[in-house]
Parts: sequence; structure tokens; C-alpha cells
Amino acid sequence: MATKKMILDLDTGIDDALAMALAVEDPRIDLIGVISSYGNTLIETAGQNSLDLLHLLKADEVPVYLGDSHSSTTQTFETMPISMAIHGDNGIGNIKLDPATRKIEDQSGVQFLIDAAHQYGDNLIYLPTGPLTNLAAAIQKDPAVAELIGQTTLMGGALTVPGNVTPFTEANIHQDPEAADFVFTHQKNLTMIGLDVTLRTLLTKKHTKEWRALGTNAGAQYADMMDYYIDAYDRLDIDHRGAALHDPLAVAVAIDPNYVTTIDLNMRVTYDRNSGDYGRTIGDNQKLLDSTTTKVAVNVDNERFVRDFQDFMLDILKH
Amino acid sequence: MATKKMILDLDTGIDDALAMALAVEDPRIDLIGVISSYGNTLIETAGQNSLDLLHLLKADEVPVYLGDSHSSTTQTFETMPISMAIHGDNGIGNIKLDPATRKIEDQSGVQFLIDAAHQYGDNLIYLPTGPLTNLAAAIQKDPAVAELIGQTTLMGGALTVPGNVTPFTEANIHQDPEAADFVFTHQKNLTMIGLDVTLRTLLTKKHTKEWRALGTNAGAQYADMMDYYIDAYDRLDIDHRGAALHDPLAVAVAIDPNYVTTIDLNMRVTYDRNSGDYGRTIGDNQKLLDSTTTKVAVNVDNERFVRDFQDFMLDILKH
Repeated sequence: MATKKMILDLDTGIDDALAMALAVEDPRIDLIGVISSYGNTLIETAGQNSLDLLHLLKADEVPVYLGDSHSSTTQTFETMPISMAIHGDNGIGNIKLDPATRKIEDQSGVQFLIDAAHQYGDNLIYLPTGPLTNLAAAIQKDPAVAELIGQTTLMGGALTVPGNVTPFTEANIHQDPEAADFVFTHQKNLTMIGLDVTLRTLLTKKHTKEWRALGTNAGAQYADMMDYYIDAYDRLDIDHRGAALHDPLAVAVAIDPNYVTTIDLNMRVTYDRNSGDYGRTIGDNQKLLDSTTTKVAVNVDNERFVRDFQDFMLDILKH
Repeated sequence: MATKKMILDLDTGIDDALAMALAVEDPRIDLIGVISSYGNTLIETAGQNSLDLLHLLKADEVPVYLGDSHSSTTQTFETMPISMAIHGDNGIGNIKLDPATRKIEDQSGVQFLIDAAHQYGDNLIYLPTGPLTNLAAAIQKDPAVAELIGQTTLMGGALTVPGNVTPFTEANIHQDPEAADFVFTHQKNLTMIGLDVTLRTLLTKKHTKEWRALGTNAGAQYADMMDYYIDAYDRLDIDHRGAALHDPLAVAVAIDPNYVTTIDLNMRVTYDRNSGDYGRTIGDNQKLLDSTTTKVAVNVDNERFVRDFQDFMLDILKH
């Protein structure tokens, strides 16, 4: 089977951990590296979480890089209290994982992305599940990147539904709207997997009970992580029926676009702090008659996706 | 050919005048009445414009009714300066039409709509191109109306693009967000034709020159009206390439849905005056997993529509 190279850019993160599991195990994907981002947690924590999760998934051969540690317009980053409430103080539901014995790579994540774009071109899928800071930095450093990367599938944004940080703004975009606008207006072959679709993909404790019943270490630890996330959704009144599979949906769509319905739309991100809609992902009125390079997912076959996701996780976690 | 009954609810309005022309002349439609609304102009002006335009189009048999003269939350209505700038002080580009000899009907527009919903049911298309005040009033007076009307195709709203009154709010919805929210959350078989698609359908003076070249009174008067509108678009920096065919696109889609691509989405309209997004048409997060009764147009075959529209207008105006 022809495989695609994939780079995950994760602010790891409970649903990031699910996305990683899919990418590690799917035979259609060759995961060539994980870039770490600030976002759900600090970048160092995200990096260590990625190393430890890859260890848990028996994928210690996948290198982990650090991206930028803060947004393109700030000098520092602090984890938002709401992020800690959803993902735990350590980003992975306060679960203790066996630490990986290896370390983060010395090369910067941004340079790794640039090099991979040149090396793999059309065969490369770049999949950020956090802020778009690293991709914007890569394009600014080497503008060819915007044309070279074969496919970019991002989790973030909200077009047809309200945001989850403000009525207009989704959390990943909110971290760095300037970078997001730069990406939306520069990157070719971009697909946005936003709240429009991810809020329709709910996992429940019925599912995690099946993970735990596998009797494996990975099954137990992923179930503990996911239960923390499901409890947070319930406690914070985000959704009492289950927790949204934001990041894994993006991976699934990158592999099989048929999970979602998309519309073609040239987008921009507002970043005027005085406008009241800081960080809104919205169509660009000035480009309504232009050809488009961005697709936005607006509907999802959520029953098929959740079923396939569960089957996949049971396969992954049984080892 | 099986015809559908249609009621237009117009705040007449230059593009309303174009919508009326399509509905009068299309053999697939039996225009059974025009309800007048406040909006682009005062209700009395809208009503007189509708009478006079129907006279110009040799359709004096179509009755004209008055709907509510102001929004559901106000006691009066004044035309916004921007409306006068776009549509002229008299709503139809300051063109003088021969006055119709007949008068507005005595029956209220809201009652006419209720009666027609009961009489024609599935065979009725209701098409509002202004505020949704009259439909909301009809449903509140007789809740069966929401289920009875076969198809409601409205011009208004903006889902995937910014609004034209505020970054969030389109002009028709802005007139009465409370009524709009009531309609979006109650009316079955609703299709929203918003700025998402109408801003992509541009008419130019190249087109109106052909209308004028027909040498008819109707051709000259419609060309004068439309040129006023095209000039306003240019002068107000709305679009320098032409003027949007908002209302006629809604009529065309009501007759032939293939002009647009739609998505299924349960919508709501925000109407908290302190929220900063007063009058925003947006997906309802609480109903993302529910079955849907609303379709939102997100793309349009604008080349085909503008070409067909022009052919149609040349046919209409040659008499």
C-alpha cells in the first residue's frame, strides 16, 4: 500500500494522544515526526508527553521536535486555566506514564518541517492540532513551504458554529490569530477540521470501558486519560453526552476525506484586538470570486467515524 | 407544467423589483400575492412600489398586502441612511413609475399568509426578501403555519462570510433578530440564501445596457433603477465590479435549487444587544446531532445564474 508521510504538530493534550495513536498505527501513514507546540500545555510538557506516549505505543523510533514555545506576537506562554481543567495539569489527564528513555531532537521543529516539505513535497501530510505558529514560522522562513507541502489538515477554527473561547473564536486559533491568518492566506491545499464537525463526534465511557477491558497497559492508560476528558466535558457543561474527538478526526480525514463534507472557501482570521471578533475564522469577502485553496469541513459522518475510531483504538490498544 | 404558488414578502427595494420580475414571468410559478414589509424603505412606500412595479410588468392582477410596519420589538421604523443610499429615497433608485390605479388590499399581509398556508400547504413557496417579522407574526398567531408552508426560501443572513451591517450581521436579519431567531427555530423546510452566495452574483452596466437597448418602457425603467444600484455599490465601496443580485437569486433557487450548494444546519439568530454579535445567523451548538430542517446556501453557480437571469430579464422587459 502506498503510504503518505505525516508530520503531527501536537500540543499534547488528551485528544492529541488519540490522534497520535491513529497516526502511529494506520498502515496508510508513515509518521515521520512529531513537532511539539505550546497550547493545551507548555511546550516542554507537550514534548515529554509525546515522547512518553510514543513509548507507550511502542513507537520510540518516531522523532519528537520542539516548535515555537509561544505565539508569534508574545514572548511567553502560560497555559490557560480552561486547558488545565480539560486536559489536566500535565496535559494528559494527570495520568503518570512510564517516561521514555530518549530525548527531544536537537533540531528545531520549524526547521524539521521545512526540510520535510522539500524532501517529501506532495507526499507529505502536515497535521497541526494546536496553534498554527510553527507552520506560519516555517513559511515566513522559507516561503516555498506553502507550495511544497502536499496536504495540510488542521484541527481548529469554527465557521458555521460559535467558538469555544469566545462566541467567535476556537481555542487553537485563539492562541495565535496572526499566525493563523498568515497560514489561511498563504498555505495551499489546506483543510480545516473545526468545531463545525468535531463537536459532532462524541466518545463515551461505554467506549473507554472496552479499552480498559482489553487488560493491557496501553488500554488502561488511554482509558484513564480519556475518562478524565469525558468527565471534564461533563463537569464544564461542554457536553454531557460525551467528549469530542477533535484531533483524531483530523487524522482520520487526512487519510480518508470521505468522513466529512467540505466547502471550498477562501478564509481569513481576524486579529484586531479591538474588533470584538479577535480570532474569528471567516470567509474572505474580497476573494469570493477567486479560485480556492482551502476546504472547510461542515458536516461529518459521525456514526461511521466514531465506529471506525473505536475499532481502530481497540486494535491499537490490545498489544 | 405543474406550477407552484408563490408569495413574495418584499421591502421593495431595487433587487426586490428584480425578484418580482422573475416571479411574475416564470411559467413554473403562480405568484398569488405580494406582502409588503418595512426594510429597504417604509412599508407604505414598499407597498406602493410593489403596486407600481406590478403595473409596469402588466401584472395588475397580483394582490398587494401590507405586513407589519416595524420590527417585533419596536413601535416605529425609520429607513436607515445606508438603505436610502443603496436604494434611493423612494426605494427604487429615485425613478418615477406610472402609478397603479388600484390600491393595497384591506386584508393584512400576515392573515393572507396564514390563509394561504392553510389553502395551499405543500404547494406554497413563501419567499421573504426583507425582515422576517411577518412570518414570525404569522407563526405566533397560528403555529400550524410553520408546518404547513411547503417551502420557505429567504434572502438574508450571512453564515460563512461577514455581515454587511456589522461583521456578524446581514441587513435583513439586523432589522428584527428576534423574529429571525423565531423563524429559524420554528419554520420547517427553510432555505437561507445569504450573503455567502448573493455577493458572488454580480450584475453590471453591460447587462443593463442590453435592457435599455430593448427600447421598451420597462427596459428603460428597470435599467435606470439597476444603474442607480450599481452606482451605489461602486460609490459605497461595496463592490466596484457590479451589484449583487440578492433577492432574484432567492427566487431562482426557490424554482431551481441546483443553482446553489447547500449545507444542512440547525441555525439560530443571536439577539442579545449586549453580546457584540447582535443579529448573527449561526449554527446552534445544542442541535448539532439533531435532524435538520434548514438548508443554508454556501456556494452558487454564479456564471450560470447571472447568464440565466439576464436571459430572463431580456425576455420580461421586451414586452
